Amino acid sequence: MNIVNGGLPGQSSGFNPFGELIGMVFTGYGDGRSRCEVQVREELFNPHGVLHGGVLYSMADTGMGGALYSILGEGESCTTVEIKIAYLAAVSSGILVCDTHVIDRRSRLAILESEIVNRSPDGERLVAKALGTFYIYRSC
Amino acid sequence: MNIVNGGLPGQSSGFNPFGELIGMVFTGYGDGRSRCEVQVREELFNPHGVLHGGVLYSMADTGMGGALYSILGEGESCTTVEIKIAYLAAVSSGILVCDTHVIDRRSRLAILESEIVNRSPDGERLVAKALGTFYIYRSC
Amino acid sequence: MNIVNGGLPGQSSGFNPFGELIGMVFTGYGDGRSRCEVQVREELFNPHGVLHGGVLYSMADTGMGGALYSILGEGESCTTVEIKIAYLAAVSSGILVCDTHVIDRRSRLAILESEIVNRSPDGERLVAKALGTFYIYRSC
Amino acid sequence: MNIVNGGLPGQSSGFNPFGELIGMVFTGYGDGRSRCEVQVREELFNPHGVLHGGVLYSMADTGMGGALYSILGEGESCTTVEIKIAYLAAVSSGILVCDTHVIDRRSRLAILESEIVNRSPDGERLVAKALGTFYIYRSC
Repeated sequence: MNIVNGGLPGQSSGFNPFGELIGMVFTGYGDGRSRCEVQVREELFNPHGVLHGGVLYSMADTGMGGALYSILGEGESCTTVEIKIAYLAAVSSGILVCDTHVIDRRSRLAILESEIVNRSPDGERLVAKALGTFYIYRSC
Repeated sequence: MNIVNGGLPGQSSGFNPFGELIGMVFTGYGDGRSRCEVQVREELFNPHGVLHGGVLYSMADTGMGGALYSILGEGESCTTVEIKIAYLAAVSSGILVCDTHVIDRRSRLAILESEIVNRSPDGERLVAKALGTFYIYRSC
Repeated sequence: MNIVNGGLPGQSSGFNPFGELIGMVFTGYGDGRSRCEVQVREELFNPHGVLHGGVLYSMADTGMGGALYSILGEGESCTTVEIKIAYLAAVSSGILVCDTHVIDRRSRLAILESEIVNRSPDGERLVAKALGTFYIYRSC
Repeated sequence: MNIVNGGLPGQSSGFNPFGELIGMVFTGYGDGRSRCEVQVREELFNPHGVLHGGVLYSMADTGMGGALYSILGEGESCTTVEIKIAYLAAVSSGILVCDTHVIDRRSRLAILESEIVNRSPDGERLVAKALGTFYIYRSC
């Protein structure tokens, strides 16, 4: 897995508007794996004053797309079919790190898994886990 | 279900920072049901030039919280345990309307369901469906 | 949806060994829908003395296959990609009726939903709900 | 994790009727983990002539219950809230081994994960993965 800065290789900085809106950056990518990160900030909070679960979900969804792209062939593209995410703890500060890998890739389908860790002054803790399905198609 | 404007009854306009970031408003709330809406705009797009799945998920998650709150007792609060969302079609314009209802409420747990419809010049279409679990606790 | 007795049209009575093991019969089939039933009996119980969740799951999985088959074209077959099932109540007597329908069918994928009701002397009650993904392939 | 023969410690051989019906035995148990096994046989097949997905699901569900029980306190019991299972490959011979562990245990909730491997003459292969939620209550 390569270390990357802010975007996937070969893509412009504006490639992911929603990713930018929530402040998500890829910091690793390759071999069916990806890592993306988000700095926790109040703009991303829910009515309870903790991070909105949609931010964690969006990291998993985007991270799965990145991990799968890293092993797709030329002319192949992919799209999310479904994802389940389970939450283990609330998040209110620090950094979120989402590590994703492809569990299985068939001709048209892939199964992926993400684990999201919160690094804060209180230490490091697993805060969410996701299991998803992607569909692979030829984009040209 | 009551019709509401922009927020749940009795809550200030700043109650949901992440909801505001993505432009989500509640337009119905009550009796274990909720409706929330998002206007599709490019800021919410993914690298493929269509709406990021995290936006649809965030509508379901927030809508489930709203629907469940409408039937909680005094001093009760709730939190997302897990949600699965399945996507049926890509979205690139129009309005998203997320209708949620409580399927089952027990002492500490609730099961909820959301359906998200895209209203665009092309007509109205179901674009996502979610099934989730919430935990109920006493907040005081 | 047609009413059928014990198996899908055109299939021999031995077509589904595991379905027979748990006593599952199809009682409706067609137009992207299916209904299957199981008579609750102690042989299907878990260590807590109530119906094992695997029986309810197996009804949903089988019912989804049946519902999807009813709209497949000649030479098409299907397989389960993933299913999530949520349980609403324990079951200890009566009959289980699982109603399934196809929510969305694309070229290679389908999204399906099942609801399982328990009919007992205590009345009728929704006891489980499932949301699943199937893959469609050409079988010849 | 202790090695056990056919049932959990302290329980009679008849403790799990449905587990017996499908031929499931626990071969490991303890410290929030469990291992259970099933010998593949035609009685467990679906209409396509391969193992019914309900068997794999039932292993995950039962294995999760076992893994969680191993860390419950006196007077505590548990029940399945929901499980999602994803299938990676069809199974037609050999032995299935389901390894489960508790990812997170809170006061009333636990999140668990199962991986099911098929050991056959063709080698060893991951065939299913499940992510589930259990509710913990006081049984007395």
